[in-house]
Amino acid sequence: MISVREAEKILSKFYFNKTEYIKIEESYGRVLAEDIISNIDIPRFDRSDIDGYAVAEILEEYILIDEVFAGDDKDLEIKGNECVSVATGGKVPKNTKYVIPVENTIKIGNKIVVINFDRIEGISKKGCDVKKGDIILKKGTLINERNIGVLACLGIEEVKVYKTPKVGIISTGNELFKMTKDINSKTIASIVKKAGCEPIFLGIARDDPNEIKEHIIEASKKCDIIVTSGGVSIGKKDFLPRIVDELGEILFHKVKMRPGMPILFGKIDKKPIFCMPGNIVSCLVCSYVFLLPLLMKMAHKPYRRKIIKAKLSEKIISEPDFLYLWPVKLKNGIAYPTFKGSNMLTSILNADGLSVIKEHELKKDEGDMVDVWIFE
Amino acid sequence: MISVREAEKILSKFYFNKTEYIKIEESYGRVLAEDIISNIDIPRFDRSDIDGYAVAEILEEYILIDEVFAGDDKDLEIKGNECVSVATGGKVPKNTKYVIPVENTIKIGNKIVVINFDRIEGISKKGCDVKKGDIILKKGTLINERNIGVLACLGIEEVKVYKTPKVGIISTGNELFKMTKDINSKTIASIVKKAGCEPIFLGIARDDPNEIKEHIIEASKKCDIIVTSGGVSIGKKDFLPRIVDELGEILFHKVKMRPGMPILFGKIDKKPIFCMPGNIVSCLVCSYVFLLPLLMKMAHKPYRRKIIKAKLSEKIISEPDFLYLWPVKLKNGIAYPTFKGSNMLTSILNADGLSVIKEHELKKDEGDMVDVWIFE
Repeated sequence: MISVREAEKILSKFYFNKTEYIKIEESYGRVLAEDIISNIDIPRFDRSDIDGYAVAEILEEYILIDEVFAGDDKDLEIKGNECVSVATGGKVPKNTKYVIPVENTIKIGNKIVVINFDRIEGISKKGCDVKKGDIILKKGTLINERNIGVLACLGIEEVKVYKTPKVGIISTGNELFKMTKDINSKTIASIVKKAGCEPIFLGIARDDPNEIKEHIIEASKKCDIIVTSGGVSIGKKDFLPRIVDELGEILFHKVKMRPGMPILFGKIDKKPIFCMPGNIVSCLVCSYVFLLPLLMKMAHKPYRRKIIKAKLSEKIISEPDFLYLWPVKLKNGIAYPTFKGSNMLTSILNADGLSVIKEHELKKDEGDMVDVWIFE
Repeated sequence: MISVREAEKILSKFYFNKTEYIKIEESYGRVLAEDIISNIDIPRFDRSDIDGYAVAEILEEYILIDEVFAGDDKDLEIKGNECVSVATGGKVPKNTKYVIPVENTIKIGNKIVVINFDRIEGISKKGCDVKKGDIILKKGTLINERNIGVLACLGIEEVKVYKTPKVGIISTGNELFKMTKDINSKTIASIVKKAGCEPIFLGIARDDPNEIKEHIIEASKKCDIIVTSGGVSIGKKDFLPRIVDELGEILFHKVKMRPGMPILFGKIDKKPIFCMPGNIVSCLVCSYVFLLPLLMKMAHKPYRRKIIKAKLSEKIISEPDFLYLWPVKLKNGIAYPTFKGSNMLTSILNADGLSVIKEHELKKDEGDMVDVWIFE
């Protein structure tokens, strides 16, 4: 039996680096697997910031020689008393020094008379926003509402992103074919969605080594990571340890934590496999502690536990060397334990987080401060 | 021109309460539109917490009369020295007082001899987790990884949830058919996805009142809320105010804020319509300030701005009565303004939030503390 920290160290060795090209319309929330280097200047030309007249020097009167709308690609040139009408965002002619706002002028035929010299607006120079050759977004950047516009502006249609890990989910147990409902697969699938990964439910396997094995082999072919639940203890129907050992390698079995102690983790064809305890609370706590962070890492997304301090409403006694993660409901800075047993749905249904009693602490009294890992 | 607070008050009058039934497998992240009342006790029967022998009284030896696996629905009864083998989660016979752990016994033929009285485990009584008739999840609850198991356990296959608002997105401007890229629709679609709503891109309309009108009418038929961008100022090609007025009602046009001042908001057939400024930074800031909170509310999801305090790296001067929302990059508690102009992608590309200069403040000096609305 190993500690939670040792288990985390073993998990830290797993990576997932498959990539794919997707349309930028589909890229929100995905992670870039390449640097985005600008192949153009933005703006691509000296651009007018306002509706007005582009002029080469300050005079009182100009002759209007042409007009430019936003998006036009006209190569014009002005000199002396010539001016060109330009719309906001329009490309200004060569030699433009200023754009005089339209509201500061009067138009008489093709003559433009300046009536107010107050505000002479600048021009956005070619490349002043983004320079050709700039690394504009780095590999590993999450595509969000602020940077997706840059991709569009660069004219990029497809980007290289990390693939979304596919997570094969298998429930085990004869009882799931009888009166007992399969709760765990839906819970695990929700954790998978929370991490932005793709759950693939591969069905329920009976307590039969061959049936379980077939399910796991199918999962290892179709998916990037496998999560089973049930059959992981030491009872006569607990086949998972033997099967993982046969198909791959057990990396740890049993962790010094409660709930969640019976968890097994291994690899099959280099793919990680979690075998979660069947009890819902144990399964969920193991999912929070081990599965969610690994999935986030495999999806190349940042993950940080949100921890707050709270005052315990009642005593919790733990065992030496065990990390206790006791579900609590938070109210006004006080943590109320909700744990009633690892097979009780209401142990965690209304909890806001897990209060942490560390390995050496052995107990926390009523009124003691505890760290609480907040569910988000 | 109204203040941001007045604009928010107008937005607060919009609701969206359409509902639908969906499979619980699809319900993660959705919001319940009904109370979930338990129609069963959980456990549905007195359930064994361990693998062991159910007994009616404490004796040294029992006669094994039957066995129960998890999920079995056998109605057994024991009395006197009778015992029944029960698996973890199995239904215990009538009259069961204790379940003696299997490891504390020896089996000789059909005789069960108790060798260790140390640990006599309890039973999870019928209904001790959830009672029939309990409101187990309230209307308005977000379905997550902790409560989805309860739905599964109750045998619920479909739940009534609020519909996901459909957001019709329209870009306007002749320039989008020429050299200029359509940046805004992808940015707005990303905000829509951030809110968990469904973006529907209805294409680009030229600067032609009829073409814009057709797009908006289509959107008002297909969608629950409409967002356009461009054409909202007072130039001769800025048709949006006139069109919204014709098809519905303008509720506000121009808000005392920068960037984002030209925003227009109205309703068409009771459906909200946002007409965002065409400049990307203005469009994005308006999306953060007005669109995202309204979408979250329409999706029945909690929304709270995350605000932190930071020290300004340089002076920002604002105008009287205007709320300034200046994009900043945060580093070690210092807010570095990134604003270069509302048409500059890099004004917001690497920003972490919007620093707030309130209406009455007029300026903030270098080193002053400011509130920063964090992008999340």
